[in-house]
Amino acid sequence: MAKLRGNAIVGQSGGPTAVINQSLVGVIEAASTMPEITTMLGAQHGVQGILRENFIDLFHESKETLEAVADTPSAALGSVRKKPTQDECLQMFEIMKKNDVRYFFYIGGNDSAETAHIVNTMAKEARYELRCFHVPKTIDNDLRVTDHCPGYGSAAKFVSSAFLGDNLDNRALPGIKINVIMGRHAGFLTAASALAKTYDDDGPHLIYVPERPLTRRQFTDDVADVYNRYGRCIIAVSEGIIDSESEDGKTFTEVIMSEVQHIEKDTHGNVQLSGSGALGDWLANLLKNTLDSKLRVRADTFGYLQRSFPGCVSEIDALEARMCGRKAVEFATTKDIDGSVVLRRTAQESVYQVDIDYTELANVARETRVLPDEYINATGNGITPDFIDYARPLVGLLPTAGYFEGMRQ
Amino acid sequence: MAKLRGNAIVGQSGGPTAVINQSLVGVIEAASTMPEITTMLGAQHGVQGILRENFIDLFHESKETLEAVADTPSAALGSVRKKPTQDECLQMFEIMKKNDVRYFFYIGGNDSAETAHIVNTMAKEARYELRCFHVPKTIDNDLRVTDHCPGYGSAAKFVSSAFLGDNLDNRALPGIKINVIMGRHAGFLTAASALAKTYDDDGPHLIYVPERPLTRRQFTDDVADVYNRYGRCIIAVSEGIIDSESEDGKTFTEVIMSEVQHIEKDTHGNVQLSGSGALGDWLANLLKNTLDSKLRVRADTFGYLQRSFPGCVSEIDALEARMCGRKAVEFATTKDIDGSVVLRRTAQESVYQVDIDYTELANVARETRVLPDEYINATGNGITPDFIDYARPLVGLLPTAGYFEGMRQ
Repeated sequence: MAKLRGNAIVGQSGGPTAVINQSLVGVIEAASTMPEITTMLGAQHGVQGILRENFIDLFHESKETLEAVADTPSAALGSVRKKPTQDECLQMFEIMKKNDVRYFFYIGGNDSAETAHIVNTMAKEARYELRCFHVPKTIDNDLRVTDHCPGYGSAAKFVSSAFLGDNLDNRALPGIKINVIMGRHAGFLTAASALAKTYDDDGPHLIYVPERPLTRRQFTDDVADVYNRYGRCIIAVSEGIIDSESEDGKTFTEVIMSEVQHIEKDTHGNVQLSGSGALGDWLANLLKNTLDSKLRVRADTFGYLQRSFPGCVSEIDALEARMCGRKAVEFATTKDIDGSVVLRRTAQESVYQVDIDYTELANVARETRVLPDEYINATGNGITPDFIDYARPLVGLLPTAGYFEGMRQ
Repeated sequence: MAKLRGNAIVGQSGGPTAVINQSLVGVIEAASTMPEITTMLGAQHGVQGILRENFIDLFHESKETLEAVADTPSAALGSVRKKPTQDECLQMFEIMKKNDVRYFFYIGGNDSAETAHIVNTMAKEARYELRCFHVPKTIDNDLRVTDHCPGYGSAAKFVSSAFLGDNLDNRALPGIKINVIMGRHAGFLTAASALAKTYDDDGPHLIYVPERPLTRRQFTDDVADVYNRYGRCIIAVSEGIIDSESEDGKTFTEVIMSEVQHIEKDTHGNVQLSGSGALGDWLANLLKNTLDSKLRVRADTFGYLQRSFPGCVSEIDALEARMCGRKAVEFATTKDIDGSVVLRRTAQESVYQVDIDYTELANVARETRVLPDEYINATGNGITPDFIDYARPLVGLLPTAGYFEGMRQ
């Protein structure tokens, strides 16, 4: 069978990351060398840009522009949170046909993989010949199959750097400090806070992830215990932590929000957890009300900085993001297949190495992966050394802190 | 009159910054060359460390340790928020006498300058011979006399970098974004968000500082206007913005907090504004309730990251912080005076240059400086080019963003 030839569309979808543009540029530069692909159309704001025929011609961008874009956080083509309907898919195929489009690359997380899967399935049903490839991207690191996701290493570097600084701040002015980290269902990003620790008494002293439902009592007891030991306590809390006393496993944010205000949902049915300080403030008040109203308790919610702060990029993450973009094009054209790019760690004792492979779209679409049990400690308030071994190579070098020995006694 | 000879105490006080340790190391290295100073005692957690005789001998630290500490954010000696009473001053003089201390260096903001001023005044009354020098430090940039404060440039770099990334994030997924910035009375740090703008339609589109009391109506009208123009709106809000409809000019945070919970005050009588997402969340709800409940509105409060994030340091700020520490020692010993270090900008057309000078402690203690009128626009929702000219040299180089031309139309 002759390989498909024609134009390609690339889009970005879901929450931006520090390196999603690396993947985009990887797609563009690989496609420009492939005889199967004539033109690369950048869809503005993902599938919405296809429906509106908002395209830019990416083969006409200069090498300088592409490198500048690759080094820039957030999605240079714009992003979108949208699951196309059956009708919208048919509409897209009309537009693709008109533009002779035979390749579709979609860079994003599990919702974006689902979109690629829907487009792929519908194209087959509609007998529209189209190769669909998903390029993984998410700071949450919650995609299935792949060892880790491009975007995670850089966000993890931001989180661990922030904790390193905050630990020093809290040593200087001791108190209880809660930091709320992104991660709807998976605790990978929250767990990365542990990379900031050098000494036993360094924060974070407690780490709570969505994988372990929590009671208010365990939380306040844990904090009291650490505070009594060190005179201070730094806590990493995932925005998605579950209230184990709620019916049907609600997040604390849902419990708080349902009491006070309307709950916002996106078109994938997800409740808004980010972009609000409510969880941190509520936990801070819980500690004051339960332990001692005079305690110095502060809460920061790291928010969107985790995915967009310029200059905080893991080198290996940037490199892998670029490679994943390139490989998606290579798999789609030379292998003539649909799928999603995955990273496989090839364990060579302590040397970090990955192979780039692929899997079927159905394996990645929609469902998410959570922190494996062996990465969470027995009491559910911290992470294990196995997680550190897993995450450290993805983050790369972190800043180090200078201390006076006399201050560490 | 023979110059004073003896030992010295150095302490750090108030909120840490990215470069307060540069000033500390400047004090140590200058003092080590002065015949007037025999030993440098580091007081742990400022005046509290003096009262408890918690000292470390800083002349015994290696050059490597000193350089590592200088490059580390937060206060390596620990910090404190404490105004000594008359009795505590007398107690301190006893301890100083016992340790043959004749020099006192205190690195901090206006509250710390007040502490140095109190110690200085009380020492004179008690006829205890002591040279007192204050070394300026504050991310708020609100000290009087000095052109700017060490610590501000680096915090301003964090804020403007964060807005640069957030502007790209908001371009990708448009909506209304509120970012709350530190700064109790002065809008300098909030104003620094404007350094992130390259194009007219870049955020921040609106900037609100404590110097211009605000009505809810102006806020929602301003946002609606920008949103109608650009389909998105990024807003920089100082944590200290004043509700112009409140009695006696309360901050919005005070108005919100007084409705819902107990207000925390430190020993200087300041209400807690930082370490809570309440203001951002309240403003986000105000916009949804007033404009459209379906709007995508998010609020981030940058919090303590602004003063402690490692690796986000302005080079000129680090250099000046170091020089201010050195000069404090030089002034106290060779000029045999008390005072506070100040930076004076020597206008040489467009070339940035400063001289390091001093002023009396009374000129800096307690009172603060706010943004000059000429830095705030006429409508009170933005800053002027004059401010950009003032702030840019203090921040130094910022990251740049790569764009596709086709996405800017």
